[in-house]
Amino acid sequence: MKLAILFGGASFEHEISIVSAITVKEKLASFDLSFIFCDQDHTFYLIEPSKMKAVTFSRGEHRKMQKLSVTNGGFEQKGLFGAKKHDMPVLNLIHGGDGEDGTIAAMLDFFKIPFIGPRKEASMLSFDKYYTKWFAASLGVKTLPYEVLHKDDKRVVTTAYPLIVKPSRLGSSIGVSIVREASELDYALDVAFEFDEVVLIEPFIASVKEYNLAGFAARGEITYSIVEEPQKAEFLDFEKKYLDFSRSGKVAEAEVHDNLVAQLREAFAKIYLPLFEGALIRCDFFEIEGEVYLNEINPIPGSMANYLFEDFQASIQKLLGSLPDKRAISVKYDYIHSISQAKGK
Amino acid sequence: MKLAILFGGASFEHEISIVSAITVKEKLASFDLSFIFCDQDHTFYLIEPSKMKAVTFSRGEHRKMQKLSVTNGGFEQKGLFGAKKHDMPVLNLIHGGDGEDGTIAAMLDFFKIPFIGPRKEASMLSFDKYYTKWFAASLGVKTLPYEVLHKDDKRVVTTAYPLIVKPSRLGSSIGVSIVREASELDYALDVAFEFDEVVLIEPFIASVKEYNLAGFAARGEITYSIVEEPQKAEFLDFEKKYLDFSRSGKVAEAEVHDNLVAQLREAFAKIYLPLFEGALIRCDFFEIEGEVYLNEINPIPGSMANYLFEDFQASIQKLLGSLPDKRAISVKYDYIHSISQAKGK
Repeated sequence: MKLAILFGGASFEHEISIVSAITVKEKLASFDLSFIFCDQDHTFYLIEPSKMKAVTFSRGEHRKMQKLSVTNGGFEQKGLFGAKKHDMPVLNLIHGGDGEDGTIAAMLDFFKIPFIGPRKEASMLSFDKYYTKWFAASLGVKTLPYEVLHKDDKRVVTTAYPLIVKPSRLGSSIGVSIVREASELDYALDVAFEFDEVVLIEPFIASVKEYNLAGFAARGEITYSIVEEPQKAEFLDFEKKYLDFSRSGKVAEAEVHDNLVAQLREAFAKIYLPLFEGALIRCDFFEIEGEVYLNEINPIPGSMANYLFEDFQASIQKLLGSLPDKRAISVKYDYIHSISQAKGK
Repeated sequence: MKLAILFGGASFEHEISIVSAITVKEKLASFDLSFIFCDQDHTFYLIEPSKMKAVTFSRGEHRKMQKLSVTNGGFEQKGLFGAKKHDMPVLNLIHGGDGEDGTIAAMLDFFKIPFIGPRKEASMLSFDKYYTKWFAASLGVKTLPYEVLHKDDKRVVTTAYPLIVKPSRLGSSIGVSIVREASELDYALDVAFEFDEVVLIEPFIASVKEYNLAGFAARGEITYSIVEEPQKAEFLDFEKKYLDFSRSGKVAEAEVHDNLVAQLREAFAKIYLPLFEGALIRCDFFEIEGEVYLNEINPIPGSMANYLFEDFQASIQKLLGSLPDKRAISVKYDYIHSISQAKGK
């Protein structure tokens, strides 16, 4: 089965995407894979599979490889004797900006390149934590209470300490701080505002139970991963997150009551079904007093959360067989025809 | 001043975009204009200025003209002796799908082509009337009360008659109906669901006062158009809308109290400033009992609402001089370096 892994991108998670692509390469060994790297200048390169190593990119060796351009229906490779089209489906594995903010999705859609990954609307709603709050509320999925601060706002906060400060639009814990008392707030806000104009503030609940659940839909039916209780660190810092993105070993299923699994799946389905068709996503939840709260949607989880699936290759194959079609619009010239007829020409 | 008008697109408003581009050509006569047509298959053509007539497109004559491809920094024209780059800024004049849903914006941004028009986030929030309701509420701008129906929902409606039924994601009055009594509801919903999976229902207020206000910001300061009281038809049907998109004559300023103008401008600024930098937009408002309600955001108004500006050419020039820069991200390989050093290679 042919599939092109698209990775890199102009984002703070550029390195993470490389690590993720290398992991997915291992996990999809039975596929006929191509590797398309998007560098920070948005130039595309076709990477030789044997060169799929982190140092290829950190040393800039990719620049010696074949450049690709994007055209209707696929990526094009120019050669002496004409152009070669790479028209297989694409797996969008660009984490963070570009990949998860809807840019790549819009571009692939525009050029009619079928792809695994969130569509542009789903991306926009999950990339910005503020929009995610809206979106979840509109679907009846609970999230923690929150406050929003804009860069120029007066720094008045009513959430009780300890609280957590997050840039609204970044993943991978970049710019996130736990604030235990008022004296630490200013610094935490300075850090968060380095990365975004909008910052979210939520209560920090030290002992909260966390559960992650991934899944995707094929022909309207959701395949759920196992439920994972993620390793308890206060929160994942950047380095731990890297390790997270290269995970490939299976994890143990969380020992949770069937009732909780049902609640998690119900919340997952509410989030997934309206907008995420075509993507494999991971939702991170809290459990508080028997109720499920959505913490975060990862529309392109690190290494696609392969470690949560019984049979990752079969899952990707199933998803590939059920990618959404963009509804084709047939353009009409009725109005122009009627006007030009009326004018007698 | 060089500027490329990008128009067409795979959308129900394809024809409208052509009409709009022809009008803008007249209104920006002192500019050095190029014309880039996007056909329904997403092929780009460079249109000779003398051929900027509606029949060029309805007869398919554009297909004989020069094809363009999109690359980093501009549109490229292949020739016998290499490629010619068209790297002037672009005015996105693709109405409806593609142009107003964020697709074109994402693509131009990705390829670092400076453009006039809404950015992808602004597009997505204004393209979907349901998101617009959210967005306005979060900014403290009033909108009419509404209900949302999804295609498979039970058709239970609590809004009193008469009411108005709108597909959530189309402009130009396509699929919109006024429903006077329950017996008409099913048909109106059938029509609306032809165009979208999600439908909005609002009270229909026959005698409501309507006011349109356009504007844009340059260096943080908003230039407002005059306030227009649009021609009173129950609502614009598709043909009237066409005429609307080719408007070029100045309109009379609405005779309204300064206090109302101030309220309209305040609401406009609340909507515009967070997300619409780089665009010239038109907001359509209702006035009800002395209060201003946002009805619709037109992020790419027909013929750019030229008829509302004292000096349209000077306005576009001012806007061109203040297009937002996408914050450049410098990719680092710190993590990969540290890992490979630890491994001793």
